[in-house]
Amino acid sequence: MDAAIIAAGSEMLTPDRVDTNSLYLTDQLNAHGVEVVLKLVVGDHRARLVGAMRHALSEAHMLFVSGGLGPTEDDLTREAAAELCGRSLEFRQEICDAIEARFRRMNRKMAQVNKRQAYVIEGATLLPNARGTAPGQWVEFSGRHIVLLPGPPHEMKAMFEEQCLPRLEKLAPGLVIRTRLYRVAGMPESDLDQLIAPVYRNYVNPATTILAAAGDIQVHLRARCATAGEAEAMLKEVGDPIAELLGDRIYSSNGDPLEAVVGKLLRERAMTVCVAESCTGGMVAERITSVAGSSDYFAGGFLAYSYRAKNALLGIDPELLREYKAVSEPVARAMAVAALERSGATLSVSVTGVAGPGQGAETEPVGAVWVGVANADSCRVRRFQFAGDRQRIRSLAAQTALDMLRRCILEKALPRRDR
Amino acid sequence: MDAAIIAAGSEMLTPDRVDTNSLYLTDQLNAHGVEVVLKLVVGDHRARLVGAMRHALSEAHMLFVSGGLGPTEDDLTREAAAELCGRSLEFRQEICDAIEARFRRMNRKMAQVNKRQAYVIEGATLLPNARGTAPGQWVEFSGRHIVLLPGPPHEMKAMFEEQCLPRLEKLAPGLVIRTRLYRVAGMPESDLDQLIAPVYRNYVNPATTILAAAGDIQVHLRARCATAGEAEAMLKEVGDPIAELLGDRIYSSNGDPLEAVVGKLLRERAMTVCVAESCTGGMVAERITSVAGSSDYFAGGFLAYSYRAKNALLGIDPELLREYKAVSEPVARAMAVAALERSGATLSVSVTGVAGPGQGAETEPVGAVWVGVANADSCRVRRFQFAGDRQRIRSLAAQTALDMLRRCILEKALPRRDR
Repeated sequence: MDAAIIAAGSEMLTPDRVDTNSLYLTDQLNAHGVEVVLKLVVGDHRARLVGAMRHALSEAHMLFVSGGLGPTEDDLTREAAAELCGRSLEFRQEICDAIEARFRRMNRKMAQVNKRQAYVIEGATLLPNARGTAPGQWVEFSGRHIVLLPGPPHEMKAMFEEQCLPRLEKLAPGLVIRTRLYRVAGMPESDLDQLIAPVYRNYVNPATTILAAAGDIQVHLRARCATAGEAEAMLKEVGDPIAELLGDRIYSSNGDPLEAVVGKLLRERAMTVCVAESCTGGMVAERITSVAGSSDYFAGGFLAYSYRAKNALLGIDPELLREYKAVSEPVARAMAVAALERSGATLSVSVTGVAGPGQGAETEPVGAVWVGVANADSCRVRRFQFAGDRQRIRSLAAQTALDMLRRCILEKALPRRDR
Repeated sequence: MDAAIIAAGSEMLTPDRVDTNSLYLTDQLNAHGVEVVLKLVVGDHRARLVGAMRHALSEAHMLFVSGGLGPTEDDLTREAAAELCGRSLEFRQEICDAIEARFRRMNRKMAQVNKRQAYVIEGATLLPNARGTAPGQWVEFSGRHIVLLPGPPHEMKAMFEEQCLPRLEKLAPGLVIRTRLYRVAGMPESDLDQLIAPVYRNYVNPATTILAAAGDIQVHLRARCATAGEAEAMLKEVGDPIAELLGDRIYSSNGDPLEAVVGKLLRERAMTVCVAESCTGGMVAERITSVAGSSDYFAGGFLAYSYRAKNALLGIDPELLREYKAVSEPVARAMAVAALERSGATLSVSVTGVAGPGQGAETEPVGAVWVGVANADSCRVRRFQFAGDRQRIRSLAAQTALDMLRRCILEKALPRRDR
């Protein structure tokens, strides 16, 4: 069973509004084994609404339309759906009475325009609206289902839960959906795909989707089967070999972001971490402290952005900076070690790089980033080369620093030390 | 002239993702007099992509498709557009060479799959991609225009601005659109609307849109007229009274974000600033350093997140922390003063608050934030109370700290001091 979703309303076509109703509907539909294959946003335009509905029904068995059930002249969803089905709209006195009563309860008088909301498509099932004046409608047409829902999210959700879910459960066969998610750091999307495509491309079920952000890739597997056991078996058959290929580049299998994973590792080991950031200017620390409870393991940080700050805040020798420049192995090392000493943390991570657009006084090119991770006994430093604009290079640098920290904790090359 | 927009990619049909590319495209297209009449989201499914493109072109003269130009097997936009037009895809060696060179510059080897990105629809104009491997394509077909853009927002935006806007300006008729934008800090949306609605609600042209984010409101005026003079006059008639009502709560009239405004003020006065952040954990500094060239005025920072870090990094007296707790006027003051002394900056800004969800050891409630701004002669401290979740409280705190810094610089209560 598959579905399409239309958001109706010209305001949904402005630069300021996104259709969020469809996210809720997708979530609910997926949970009941219904796949959403198409979404549309259409303005208050009758012919375009009819066209969109026709196209949607050519692609999916069910169509959910939210919006355009209001009382004003630009609320055209009822008329469009009736036209599409070649059916008439019937005035129902009992709906009109109910709307009138609703207004009376609020000590208001029903406006004449609200009568528009009492028209129902011939043969449709009425979906009462507990939260507003616009009733919904459920129309069966040529073996397909058209469901008209109000636009305001709280009305739409209440109606979907109370009126649509029970009907959906009868319609949708007992399909079970199970998902697996791997989050991967430190790998370009094309490399990852080349590595795992030989596994997943032999399967339509589970479906594999790869989502890439800066230095952060999500591999989603979604199995749809008759039973939960079957679905889990499908996920295992495809997911396990993928996990083996990706190895420790997978930092999370439960959706946790990298900063939460690092936080959990630190907490488990009773470790604390501090940062010494240059080009990322606080981004690494901001991510670490975005996790509630991070004060248990975040020991603070130094934002040593300029040469002067590297000396004033961390005591980096000006001679070292002159000789090697700030974006260099020795300075990344010195920053990590100084931050560790000054904060009293178990671990430290340092980042120094050229975020661009200019190269400044550095000899390294734009996108070059050195990351250091130190504990009391040792310090590891690595160089990375990123591409992109300033924002992207900073994001990649922060992500990479967190991932290097994660690997160092896991490798135990940087051993446990009590606080 | 009208347009339709398709977002291609199965990930855009999950409950977690909204298509934001279309918001940017709508904004740009509207500004050039092109109305967006339809938006679609389609998964990685060739036949559905072709169907969506066909439907879109039946409704609009221009079609913009973002996504599906990547190197993997589920990137099908090229194939779908070629099928729709009944044209073939041609392999272009020079594109392949350019992609290969791009990988070489990053010291990487091009994966074989990237060759897919070197295929161009017969007769299409190639749109070079300055930020990624996927080139865009502009296809004229039956008097309509199909434009294929990459999915990653930074690639899509750069390509649209550099490649599409010049072509669009030639195509679109001469309706003049002029806009004004006020960015406002430190005011709830409903208060702002109550203040300025009496002015703008009498006008359909210019259209007024209010966009609110955490502590940051944008007031957009958009006039559409036959001549530039007319449009400017309309903007003046509505915009000037609005600006007067908002006064110094407007921090920017050219779209610059708050951190850029603060940076410009510091640079003009040859001042430097350092930060001492607790609950914001680096967010203030991250914003300051997101501006290129900020090393000229950012003197570094201390992330003193825990009690221990406040002492270790800034030398805050443990007695003071015990007596007043960390989220207090005296500690905000001590942090600002210590950061100023230790960094040698002209100005410092400190933030200490309860981001939640827990209250920890503090006596102040969740959402309470103290902000301090100091120079060599004086220090001003203010208390704010915010509502929302951890992320929202942190964002509001960072925004408020930057705005307080801006006001202190402007008021000259904290006078100029040479570096």
